Amino acid sequence: MTLIDAGLIQDHNNSQLRHAANDYEHLGEQLARRNIDIDVVRKKVAAFGVAIPSWGVGTGGTRFARFPGLGEPRNVFDKLQDCGVIQQLACATPTVSLHIPWDKTSDWKALRETATRYGLGFDAINSNTFSDQSGQAHSYKFGSLTHGDAGTRAQAVAHNIECIEIGQQIGSKALTVWIGDGSNFPGQQHFRRAFDRYLESAREIYAALPGDWRMFLEHKICEPAFYSTVIQDWGSSYLAASALGPKAQCLVDLGHHAPNVNIEMIVARLIAAGKLAGFHFNDSKYGDDDLDAGSVAPYRLFLVFNELVAAAHEKVAGFDPAYMLDQSHNVTDPIESLMTSAAQVQRSYAQALIVDRTALDAAQDANDALLATQALKRGFETDVTPILQRVRLDAGGAIDPVGAYRASAYRQRVAKDRPVVIGGGGGIV
Amino acid sequence: MTLIDAGLIQDHNNSQLRHAANDYEHLGEQLARRNIDIDVVRKKVAAFGVAIPSWGVGTGGTRFARFPGLGEPRNVFDKLQDCGVIQQLACATPTVSLHIPWDKTSDWKALRETATRYGLGFDAINSNTFSDQSGQAHSYKFGSLTHGDAGTRAQAVAHNIECIEIGQQIGSKALTVWIGDGSNFPGQQHFRRAFDRYLESAREIYAALPGDWRMFLEHKICEPAFYSTVIQDWGSSYLAASALGPKAQCLVDLGHHAPNVNIEMIVARLIAAGKLAGFHFNDSKYGDDDLDAGSVAPYRLFLVFNELVAAAHEKVAGFDPAYMLDQSHNVTDPIESLMTSAAQVQRSYAQALIVDRTALDAAQDANDALLATQALKRGFETDVTPILQRVRLDAGGAIDPVGAYRASAYRQRVAKDRPVVIGGGGGIV
Amino acid sequence: MTLIDAGLIQDHNNSQLRHAANDYEHLGEQLARRNIDIDVVRKKVAAFGVAIPSWGVGTGGTRFARFPGLGEPRNVFDKLQDCGVIQQLACATPTVSLHIPWDKTSDWKALRETATRYGLGFDAINSNTFSDQSGQAHSYKFGSLTHGDAGTRAQAVAHNIECIEIGQQIGSKALTVWIGDGSNFPGQQHFRRAFDRYLESAREIYAALPGDWRMFLEHKICEPAFYSTVIQDWGSSYLAASALGPKAQCLVDLGHHAPNVNIEMIVARLIAAGKLAGFHFNDSKYGDDDLDAGSVAPYRLFLVFNELVAAAHEKVAGFDPAYMLDQSHNVTDPIESLMTSAAQVQRSYAQALIVDRTALDAAQDANDALLATQALKRGFETDVTPILQRVRLDAGGAIDPVGAYRASAYRQRVAKDRPVVIGGGGGIV
Amino acid sequence: MTLIDAGLIQDHNNSQLRHAANDYEHLGEQLARRNIDIDVVRKKVAAFGVAIPSWGVGTGGTRFARFPGLGEPRNVFDKLQDCGVIQQLACATPTVSLHIPWDKTSDWKALRETATRYGLGFDAINSNTFSDQSGQAHSYKFGSLTHGDAGTRAQAVAHNIECIEIGQQIGSKALTVWIGDGSNFPGQQHFRRAFDRYLESAREIYAALPGDWRMFLEHKICEPAFYSTVIQDWGSSYLAASALGPKAQCLVDLGHHAPNVNIEMIVARLIAAGKLAGFHFNDSKYGDDDLDAGSVAPYRLFLVFNELVAAAHEKVAGFDPAYMLDQSHNVTDPIESLMTSAAQVQRSYAQALIVDRTALDAAQDANDALLATQALKRGFETDVTPILQRVRLDAGGAIDPVGAYRASAYRQRVAKDRPVVIGGGGGIV
Repeated sequence: MTLIDAGLIQDHNNSQLRHAANDYEHLGEQLARRNIDIDVVRKKVAAFGVAIPSWGVGTGGTRFARFPGLGEPRNVFDKLQDCGVIQQLACATPTVSLHIPWDKTSDWKALRETATRYGLGFDAINSNTFSDQSGQAHSYKFGSLTHGDAGTRAQAVAHNIECIEIGQQIGSKALTVWIGDGSNFPGQQHFRRAFDRYLESAREIYAALPGDWRMFLEHKICEPAFYSTVIQDWGSSYLAASALGPKAQCLVDLGHHAPNVNIEMIVARLIAAGKLAGFHFNDSKYGDDDLDAGSVAPYRLFLVFNELVAAAHEKVAGFDPAYMLDQSHNVTDPIESLMTSAAQVQRSYAQALIVDRTALDAAQDANDALLATQALKRGFETDVTPILQRVRLDAGGAIDPVGAYRASAYRQRVAKDRPVVIGGGGGIV
Repeated sequence: MTLIDAGLIQDHNNSQLRHAANDYEHLGEQLARRNIDIDVVRKKVAAFGVAIPSWGVGTGGTRFARFPGLGEPRNVFDKLQDCGVIQQLACATPTVSLHIPWDKTSDWKALRETATRYGLGFDAINSNTFSDQSGQAHSYKFGSLTHGDAGTRAQAVAHNIECIEIGQQIGSKALTVWIGDGSNFPGQQHFRRAFDRYLESAREIYAALPGDWRMFLEHKICEPAFYSTVIQDWGSSYLAASALGPKAQCLVDLGHHAPNVNIEMIVARLIAAGKLAGFHFNDSKYGDDDLDAGSVAPYRLFLVFNELVAAAHEKVAGFDPAYMLDQSHNVTDPIESLMTSAAQVQRSYAQALIVDRTALDAAQDANDALLATQALKRGFETDVTPILQRVRLDAGGAIDPVGAYRASAYRQRVAKDRPVVIGGGGGIV
Repeated sequence: MTLIDAGLIQDHNNSQLRHAANDYEHLGEQLARRNIDIDVVRKKVAAFGVAIPSWGVGTGGTRFARFPGLGEPRNVFDKLQDCGVIQQLACATPTVSLHIPWDKTSDWKALRETATRYGLGFDAINSNTFSDQSGQAHSYKFGSLTHGDAGTRAQAVAHNIECIEIGQQIGSKALTVWIGDGSNFPGQQHFRRAFDRYLESAREIYAALPGDWRMFLEHKICEPAFYSTVIQDWGSSYLAASALGPKAQCLVDLGHHAPNVNIEMIVARLIAAGKLAGFHFNDSKYGDDDLDAGSVAPYRLFLVFNELVAAAHEKVAGFDPAYMLDQSHNVTDPIESLMTSAAQVQRSYAQALIVDRTALDAAQDANDALLATQALKRGFETDVTPILQRVRLDAGGAIDPVGAYRASAYRQRVAKDRPVVIGGGGGIV
Repeated sequence: MTLIDAGLIQDHNNSQLRHAANDYEHLGEQLARRNIDIDVVRKKVAAFGVAIPSWGVGTGGTRFARFPGLGEPRNVFDKLQDCGVIQQLACATPTVSLHIPWDKTSDWKALRETATRYGLGFDAINSNTFSDQSGQAHSYKFGSLTHGDAGTRAQAVAHNIECIEIGQQIGSKALTVWIGDGSNFPGQQHFRRAFDRYLESAREIYAALPGDWRMFLEHKICEPAFYSTVIQDWGSSYLAASALGPKAQCLVDLGHHAPNVNIEMIVARLIAAGKLAGFHFNDSKYGDDDLDAGSVAPYRLFLVFNELVAAAHEKVAGFDPAYMLDQSHNVTDPIESLMTSAAQVQRSYAQALIVDRTALDAAQDANDALLATQALKRGFETDVTPILQRVRLDAGGAIDPVGAYRASAYRQRVAKDRPVVIGGGGGIV
């Protein structure tokens, strides 16, 4: 099912076809000089996909305010539709990651069929024990999986197991567990006991994993807890994943680290330990800003992909990360941001692919820091736009996704059926 | 009007009177050895007050969730009542700072009379152009005082002028202006033009200030904007305050700075420049955490007070800062947190007062870093609790405010009339 | 052997005896009200010791300059003498930690006997592969234990084994390994390969450990390498220590973390994992500032000790950390700074000891964040100076170590034999 | 005078001429589609220059160690020679910035003539009051321009005036003043008094400025002082520059800020205030790492240039910044790093020049954050290497400066006359 008229896309592409072809050809010549076959790179990029979080197609906000966007999705079916548009135009996001209970529906079969019609599958499923749902027996105000009360922990465990069951119905193969548990005051929480309770709860969830599933543990240095969090960094995440077993791995969200931390190093460590679950991509300048991937620090994103491409290149055993965008779109149309971010992730991947790894290895072995870093930079400085355009074109998408999307007036059309969603944020200082 | 039964307070105090008196006496002896008259210190502490923000008596939250507290205030009259309890028991918060439009009422006179009955006055008034109010003509999604659209700016200016008018009715003498304006993407905003628009708008507000009013400009490094903010640091705040005129000064919120920044140095610079408006006290470990003042870094709070006491001691011309708590109480009873935080601020003040400034000056002059820092530390290490207890006792409050408050069952009583407030936060990722 | 005249100390103490006794008595009464026996606390504090690093008694510097102090020690015997003075007066530093090759001597037996005469023993021994020694076959410019060249690694391994052999001669029971290995450019170093080489080298050192020795792995986020370090955080340190075996543990230097990191949480994690080696105490505001312990953030130091006291209180199996000061004294007399810092560490320990753990546990179980944090704060706010004074007095030391030290004119005396040491720093931009 | 054989350069270039020409042509076509004339851009880039600091051609180090490089310059004449090589091959660094007293010579006329022979001029001159020189009457251990002792301040002032006099002999037009003054302990320094003394001293230096000179005030958040610095941020720098007068401006070193700080915003503020002196370019991940410009965060460098190009584009009155590299080359050949860094700075400039400012303005006016940031990114993602190659080629330099330099064996040649410089760093913990 096409959400955007194919003719519109084709018209839009036609006006840019010649330039795109020229650029691709010239880039191909440049890469050939470096002994790189552009078509090989292109095929790898075409095979790469990053999941969209269902909540990402709604307009985000902060504790101070949320400013609604036009035509926001009303439910998971609307969300899927928006994801379908993104995939149709940008062709880089073949899967969607659901969040329970936000995305609950009475008919999972229908949801799965709808997704199939849009050419979409489902990635990892996400549980939510960081906010209370109406009618919930136990509050998560003071914790969920690590709560001091056994009943509250049991409720949180049961919710995660329910998520696994839902995920099985839609074809997910992983559960992502992020908790808001932590403390706001020194002394509020006994660090070791809270971690022990985390392990105890996580073991129960782990035991419910189907044989081909994985469990992704997501760490975060702060927020919503502001003095301490239970899974505060990759060290704690690794401790927990090791204690749980081989199906448990550590998920890296690019915005969940202390200032200045070398994230690509963490990625390398987790790869070597066989514990890299995958990524939540976004960008940040100050904290968990959830800005668009690569919008503030594109070289950092590239350096992460450099580790990933190196691991694949070196055939590291068990290397199989999951990729998802996780951004808050407060001032842009989420569809535009997600298409652009997916392309930015592809860009980083393509740039890492064209790094001359033989030259890089040689420079490293010779302690030739300058040539080594130039080998990386050469990949990053290369404008791989022609490859990304061609990948989209080959897949039936748009050379310029944002341009085609705007021309389609999709947002204006759906806005007729989708009322403005007031509320959220505003006054929670 | 007493909100907590005076007999209950007295009973509660009676059980601790003897110990409190003994401790005060012994501390007096210790201070006398250092040539400090404890009664002089006590009187200064007794004369010190810090304002409560009206929004502080409600339960706060994060973009992820807000977990309601018991018996939250329904309106500004309920808020005043809670502030009255705080002042009755802890005797350190004689004023309240309102936030418009959150605290709007149809009868300002009644509000003022109610405050008087509780022994409360009104501090600086706060405007709000960081969230939209229903029915508002122009949205602040893309800015308020710095918005590119003249109509939006005019609306924001008018709101601030309305705040001044309200403030005049209740006896405020200052307007605090904090804006959320900024950007989430490089390029989204033209830095210089946005700042120029800020100045233009601020000048109109400044022109509306009564003769005896001040305008407090509050800077913040990030949030809700995550790539840039217009008044991002004290440098920009100072530039703006200087451009506006002598009534404009720079307000320092302890949580609004980049990591590692030496806040007490900023305080010293603003004092020297005659531009220190005052403070929003809170504490933080990661960002604008809005934790209870001194709960994470009490020595930092003391070092700020060291600058303030030094400025008073040296009779710096025009030195007259305003003090307010600005915290988000997510996991505690706000009344308990505010009483405790006010006492923490008093504690820092008292500790700074007992620093031997003659010895400190001498050590500084001799480049004797060790004795200099010991002179400060000696003040900080001194347990001034007996002074704080005595100040409360003298003012009719509780030796142990939290204990007395809990004994009074105030919260349980008001909870009968105040329903649980669901909502806010939750799902704004 | 007494380095400072005992009569001088006694005279100095006599003038303060009465006040010290009064203060101790009053504090005893206050603690008794909280059901704490001051004498029990005092005995624990008296049994506590923190090691002095031999390099700490010299004047430190920065890459920009080193400003020599008066009478700096010329060699390890001079250093021991200074350490003897510190221990004689402040009575909290019974051991010294040597750094090889800086502290090499031709007569280890004489050194050990000298130490015994000063009442000193030896703590962990430190290797140095972060700088080149004259005549060294292979340079560490591009790494030591992780160097790409096997010969360089072998040299670094051999040096560490030599350190173990020296340590055995003087009675050390642990080797501390901190390396400067890392990179200054993205791409300079292959992260996974460098870590593998680290493990390979470390295993050889580990194999040389005597049966009752431990190996302390020290991590650091940056400096001297400024893009990446091999053992960059506690996660990598834990991975390495786990790979090596039970004798390998993770050492925590308070200044080696990213900004905002919750260090006490790391301590808790390492305790739970049985991998806490111990500490290098110092303080910092910006990076690895190596300021005097507790001079900038005393509550942070207290919160670390809260974890340590809790672990001991709960009898965590295998809990046995080593304590060392590791500071750079650039603007103070190192002897004064080290005496003061040792007392600050004792202070934090004493304050943590008087926390009411039953009340803290109860508040945690009840999710009473306010009472929980007050339980901690009550310990921290208590002025335990009288306990520290009494501990020193009982041990033959000085009530006021800095005062007694200055009165002794020790520095002026040794300065006659010890020439000013020019050089170091200066122009390495 | 040519330092590298012109024939060698030509041979080296010849092998790349055809590809370079093709790439330039294709980039020209791409830019033409965006209505940009590549030749206009090229001419602006060709006219752009960034100064080399004389100390940058030596190998740097840290407080832990300095690992000497091969053939390091022995004196200012050797340094000039190395700078000549850099300028001959990379053609982007027409001036050198001296540091006094490190670069003192008995014959300034000869130095100037030598520079002229190498095609070099002199940029701002730098004073040094952060380290002691042998024979100096007063030590800067506790400060220089802000020292409590008038004699020490006078000495520091006199040194700066001497620098001006030297600068006049070699054609400098600015004095850069960076001081290490600050404190390592709370209380060590009286913040306001120290700042007053700074102003007093700076006024004396200011008074000695020739009519066409400027005085550049350089701020730094920390190091070598680790608790506070006197000119800690741009706010204090601005206060001082304003107090001094129109010739005093604020210099921005990219590594001298707190973590997360938005440096391009500071640049914008200083431009608007008419107080931007210029830059010390380098890159950093953790602190004042002094890494090669753009080696870690190239987009940040681009965003700074975006502000500069915008200011020029909008013809901001008085906009005239000075550009200098300021890096520490610890693991690379300084000549290679400086050529590469100069090209990186040119790259950022060229990328900023090709930003479509009309489109950017329009997107900003429309609050179209996505298109606005895409307009910037499009500039950044463009590989402007062909422009840089052509600029060098036109100026007689090398298409690939590092390749030509290595082929020339310059380093090996000079190493015969320049002995290895041991020393510096090493053991200043």
